[in-house]
Amino acid sequence: MNTVEIINKKKYGEVLTYEELQHVITGYVEGSIPDYQVSSLLMAIYFNGLTNQETSDLTEIMVNSGDQIDMSFLNTIVVDKHSTGGVGDKVSLIVAPIIASLGIPFAKMSGRGLGHTGGTVDKLESIEGFHTELPLDKFKEQVKEQGIALVGQSGNLVPADKKLYALRDVTGTVDSIPLIASSIMSKKIASGADSIVLDIKVGNGAFMKTVEEAEKLATAMVEIGKKLDRETVAVLTRMDQPLGDEIGNANEVIEAIKLLRDNDYSKDIYDVSVEIASQMVLLAKKASTIEEAKSLVSDVITNGKAYSKLVEFVEAQDGNIESVNEIKANQSIDVLSDEEGYYASVNTQSIGEAAMLLGAGRETKEDQIDHQVGITFHVKLGDAIKKGDKIATIHSNKQNNDEVIQKIKKAMTYTTEAVESKNSVIKIIK
Amino acid sequence: MNTVEIINKKKYGEVLTYEELQHVITGYVEGSIPDYQVSSLLMAIYFNGLTNQETSDLTEIMVNSGDQIDMSFLNTIVVDKHSTGGVGDKVSLIVAPIIASLGIPFAKMSGRGLGHTGGTVDKLESIEGFHTELPLDKFKEQVKEQGIALVGQSGNLVPADKKLYALRDVTGTVDSIPLIASSIMSKKIASGADSIVLDIKVGNGAFMKTVEEAEKLATAMVEIGKKLDRETVAVLTRMDQPLGDEIGNANEVIEAIKLLRDNDYSKDIYDVSVEIASQMVLLAKKASTIEEAKSLVSDVITNGKAYSKLVEFVEAQDGNIESVNEIKANQSIDVLSDEEGYYASVNTQSIGEAAMLLGAGRETKEDQIDHQVGITFHVKLGDAIKKGDKIATIHSNKQNNDEVIQKIKKAMTYTTEAVESKNSVIKIIK
Repeated sequence: MNTVEIINKKKYGEVLTYEELQHVITGYVEGSIPDYQVSSLLMAIYFNGLTNQETSDLTEIMVNSGDQIDMSFLNTIVVDKHSTGGVGDKVSLIVAPIIASLGIPFAKMSGRGLGHTGGTVDKLESIEGFHTELPLDKFKEQVKEQGIALVGQSGNLVPADKKLYALRDVTGTVDSIPLIASSIMSKKIASGADSIVLDIKVGNGAFMKTVEEAEKLATAMVEIGKKLDRETVAVLTRMDQPLGDEIGNANEVIEAIKLLRDNDYSKDIYDVSVEIASQMVLLAKKASTIEEAKSLVSDVITNGKAYSKLVEFVEAQDGNIESVNEIKANQSIDVLSDEEGYYASVNTQSIGEAAMLLGAGRETKEDQIDHQVGITFHVKLGDAIKKGDKIATIHSNKQNNDEVIQKIKKAMTYTTEAVESKNSVIKIIK
Repeated sequence: MNTVEIINKKKYGEVLTYEELQHVITGYVEGSIPDYQVSSLLMAIYFNGLTNQETSDLTEIMVNSGDQIDMSFLNTIVVDKHSTGGVGDKVSLIVAPIIASLGIPFAKMSGRGLGHTGGTVDKLESIEGFHTELPLDKFKEQVKEQGIALVGQSGNLVPADKKLYALRDVTGTVDSIPLIASSIMSKKIASGADSIVLDIKVGNGAFMKTVEEAEKLATAMVEIGKKLDRETVAVLTRMDQPLGDEIGNANEVIEAIKLLRDNDYSKDIYDVSVEIASQMVLLAKKASTIEEAKSLVSDVITNGKAYSKLVEFVEAQDGNIESVNEIKANQSIDVLSDEEGYYASVNTQSIGEAAMLLGAGRETKEDQIDHQVGITFHVKLGDAIKKGDKIATIHSNKQNNDEVIQKIKKAMTYTTEAVESKNSVIKIIK
């Protein structure tokens, strides 16, 4: 098979066969097809797209490029969740124990944060002693025993995606819907998911800036799920302000604990977590309607069963949950409003970057993060704010925090007219 | 400067600055920017194009990437010609001595053939003893003495184009008008041309299949010429059948000799050669109208001055012109028509490939060619042909020539209605 002909075919808008996609992907992983041919093909895909069939073929080929985790020993439907990433997104921390406390295995391999969005593994590592690297047999055993395990991505899962993603990152071919969709879905499928709930963040703090774009990505992934026999539901959720109140690592864990232990939460993080958890309950066939699922989910939050499961889970992975009872940064500085009016918008990415400046996130994979620093937000879009009101508190281990404070203030806008607050869950695509 | 940002800019349809193009090209030549980034940028250029300014900037940057030949010692306008390549294209062999005999220096660096199109250097090497590799000082000296020299591309001219072309060839990014235009123009400018006549072949034996495409390429190159102060004229000529009668190497030289020495020629090769030569005469300011230029050109053909210059030129490069008086292949086999009717069309590329099968051309750069083999065509589009008429003669050193004969026959179609013959020169763009 001739690689240049395959590139030309896609360039001219034709449809590639399974064999042609396989030739390129397998050849690339094995090293027989050079990266410069793959990158020009990726750019042609950016422009001409992939059909649903091509996208699911690509996903399947990527899954087959490495190991696949077999979860069939659980004799039940394995449901996984994935978020496209946002600021203050601690949904996995909340959903995992909810799901597990309802008898649905939660076996998740999660990523680290990069750029303005955080990663679940980093957040969990703010718990003293917590191990995110478990050998595969231990991971499986814990899922069987505790019904819950959450570890970093490891092993030889989807090497094709690792190589492709690294290449896309340096060749301007990241923002292609079929490439994003196949990348996400291949990792979920290779890690053993039978059914998948996708939390597609939409807004200025997310990768997808508009509902229209997010719908395209959601549809592409749901279609892959259909073709590869993995029931997939996409939930579009709002990321036009930080989700919940906390942005950071330890402080996001604290927020999750407060929600589960004390029923103390902001509406947005509660709504999104309940929606995601309930969709997972539905896919696991533990409820037959979404109302029934939501009732099961809210019950385990109120009656403390989800919190007990969280404690059990943290202990199983050697973490000391008492270690995250309070924020331990050297100083907490309140950010006061210089303006007044209705809080109308916030550049959410800028807030994520402010947290990164404090040390809560990393710019490059090699950066070390500081688990104890972050930002607490005290206001939500639509709130009426007066001059001098406390809009945020930064938790910092740095001497000079002027830049961060200014970045937060500059990110927020106010209007004189009242602002309608919007539902955090935008729509469901399945 | 960030290479990924530059790629993204072009991907989103924005215009790149001189500095951004220079960053990529210079970095690529120096090895600091990897081929996989360049190939994705090239594919983005394929889709979003380059403005005239970007194209001339790219050309200038490529020219500056290596040595430039200084022809100013000639104290005259140096005019060069370039053909985009076709089957039976021996125009340079005819035009060079015409131009030189009119006192206009002809100093050309030419390419070898690849695929179904031939190269002037290969053709000249079918002359016994002819050297196509001259040191630069000898090349310049010969242009000063004899007014004519024709050599293979050598030295460190436009290394950026060499690297880019090799990359385009394997990444499906060859057929981009601005990339083709800048590649051709950079080589002409670096080899010292003040003014350039482009022979843009159009038709099924050429790279440009339609007049529309050819016009785009012509306009792109004329615009580069304007911006970089090199007067450029593009002549669109028909390549919907082999040009002239001969396809091969020695036999094409013989055809050129017959035209210049005996005034014995087919109308198409004569018309194209006279047009190209006359445009060069105009650019060299040796005539003030095209009619005057054409009269000068036809005079040196009829009075033998151009032929004398050819002899002088061949001798100056150590060739024995007597060695190409006749076709020396082991056998000459006539191809007779199985059909009858008006000769309506020919798959010209297929005829070029038939000559390649005989050994007249090369599929890869490493292939050796046989200078003595080729095809003589006895018919032109529009001719009325009877069954058994001699349509071609193949000159072969091979035992079995059935495939070649069938390929020639299969390439030609006939109709019952008379076919209008068309002018070989389609239009002039300047």
